[in-house]
Amino acid sequence: MKQLLEEFSEGSVRALARVLTRVENRAPGSFRLLREVFPRSGRARVIGITGSPGSGKSTLVDKLAGRYADADGPIVGIIAVDPSSPYSHGAILGDRIRMQSADTPGKVFIRSMANRGHLGGLAPSTTDVVTVLDAWGIDPILVETVGVGQDEVDIAKLADVSVVVLVPGTGDDIQALKAGIMEIGDIFVINKCDQTGAERLELAIRAALELAPEQDGWRPPIVRTVATTGDGVDGLIGEIDRCHRNLAGDSQRSVRKRRAARERLMQILGERLMNVVLETCGEARIDGAVTAIIGREKDPYSLADEIVESAFPGRPSCRSNT
Amino acid sequence: MKQLLEEFSEGSVRALARVLTRVENRAPGSFRLLREVFPRSGRARVIGITGSPGSGKSTLVDKLAGRYADADGPIVGIIAVDPSSPYSHGAILGDRIRMQSADTPGKVFIRSMANRGHLGGLAPSTTDVVTVLDAWGIDPILVETVGVGQDEVDIAKLADVSVVVLVPGTGDDIQALKAGIMEIGDIFVINKCDQTGAERLELAIRAALELAPEQDGWRPPIVRTVATTGDGVDGLIGEIDRCHRNLAGDSQRSVRKRRAARERLMQILGERLMNVVLETCGEARIDGAVTAIIGREKDPYSLADEIVESAFPGRPSCRSNT
Repeated sequence: MKQLLEEFSEGSVRALARVLTRVENRAPGSFRLLREVFPRSGRARVIGITGSPGSGKSTLVDKLAGRYADADGPIVGIIAVDPSSPYSHGAILGDRIRMQSADTPGKVFIRSMANRGHLGGLAPSTTDVVTVLDAWGIDPILVETVGVGQDEVDIAKLADVSVVVLVPGTGDDIQALKAGIMEIGDIFVINKCDQTGAERLELAIRAALELAPEQDGWRPPIVRTVATTGDGVDGLIGEIDRCHRNLAGDSQRSVRKRRAARERLMQILGERLMNVVLETCGEARIDGAVTAIIGREKDPYSLADEIVESAFPGRPSCRSNT
Repeated sequence: MKQLLEEFSEGSVRALARVLTRVENRAPGSFRLLREVFPRSGRARVIGITGSPGSGKSTLVDKLAGRYADADGPIVGIIAVDPSSPYSHGAILGDRIRMQSADTPGKVFIRSMANRGHLGGLAPSTTDVVTVLDAWGIDPILVETVGVGQDEVDIAKLADVSVVVLVPGTGDDIQALKAGIMEIGDIFVINKCDQTGAERLELAIRAALELAPEQDGWRPPIVRTVATTGDGVDGLIGEIDRCHRNLAGDSQRSVRKRRAARERLMQILGERLMNVVLETCGEARIDGAVTAIIGREKDPYSLADEIVESAFPGRPSCRSNT
């Protein structure tokens, strides 16, 4: 452990990969590792890139990483949060390999993460992976997520800048108005903007933005790109930089930071509590409870109370909401 | 409370709505209500309908509800799990009103739910709402969800039959292969099948299904519909029925039921534990911890440990994973 941390501090890529694997698997010692590396984190720019499957956002992330890696700076990181589809991994792996052929190989560190829920449906450990990359010295960190859902909202809370990628003529113009992504986007990208419908999509986004309250003194810009050719990528980087500068100078930044830190503490708390309960009760107890629920012998609410009370005896407040 | 439960048992729609509001808001007494109604649940067919925004699934759900309500049976339920967008609510409300004009008004009960995460990112209380509708006597219950993400996977665990709605020429053919929805679909619908690209989409779904292991002795069928005209809706209902009969006769059904019950118990456990912690610590303590995280004075992992230990003193196993 001590040696691993030393190698990690010295900038060993192998040590970084080993720490990540331990953290992702919640291996013994993983929380100690996280505690040790945490003080060194907090410096990286974290950029979330969200979009529907087929929006070309993997290609866009690839290009962005290439441009960032062109500059004479630290290593660029990509975290791809993919669905935990056991047989879609082939296709996803394809994406990852394509990414690894970014313009300047060796300067982009890619980590693909399964989008699986943890015990009790708690959020995955993407935040921990970001902390580890950040502490190791990677900057910026691009977090690529698929689809629109709770995961995306979580990522938006975590990222400094959130980029939402939309495509003309795919129903994304309706999505722009309906799917709750307007709140999470700091920057909107119309990718494949050479396709018909780009105008209509831009109008739909503008209309939705008109309705939105201006946040943190920032009006989300709309950037047009063709990720496959790289058109518009420099403009996008310019807007990302501008958003970062705006954040740095903004008094509202602390609100966003507090929200992210609180979210994170709650995630860790939830996971920790669940671990205590599972260890105290054991699988047999949980199995017995599940059997009782299926047979409608007992309701899950009472069973949860009983389990909490036996894991943490003498706490009547467990039933506080009854 | 006692009177509310009596009215609920007697079939009062007003009592149903009041119980739902309490449960959704986690109002005082909500867990007692859930405990009381739980034994009467477990009879309804729960049908999940998932699809991208713009896939026409609201219209499809509307038509399905109309057909089910045509039959001389109990009241049909619709639960719409929508994103918690404060200003997209206008559009969403539009959907709900359209739905309420289903062929046989008065026999369809519609509940729109915000897709908001709870404390610590825990899953929303959709499962509880299903339990309440089920216990009241509503059948079937159609649960409509937007997008593809953790929420959809959760709904799939909850539903008896999961229907995935895709649209030709929208990138859904790529989505079919990539987005992890193949695992959750018991039935695939190609909606707007009069649009070009239906053939290509069907081939993409078939290719993805070929790779999937056959589950519970069921090969997911592909149904073509035009929701706006109602074409293919009867065929879809036929396949939903066939899937229900297959489940009823299948020994694997118990596996699925166990998974759903376990998932549910874990959700409730997580929420309960978090409540205990928040009540014991108080907001000030959490706020202080958040400040320490932002200042990098202390890491969130150690802080979580400290909070758990003070909420549940004398439990060294809280640090078990260190």
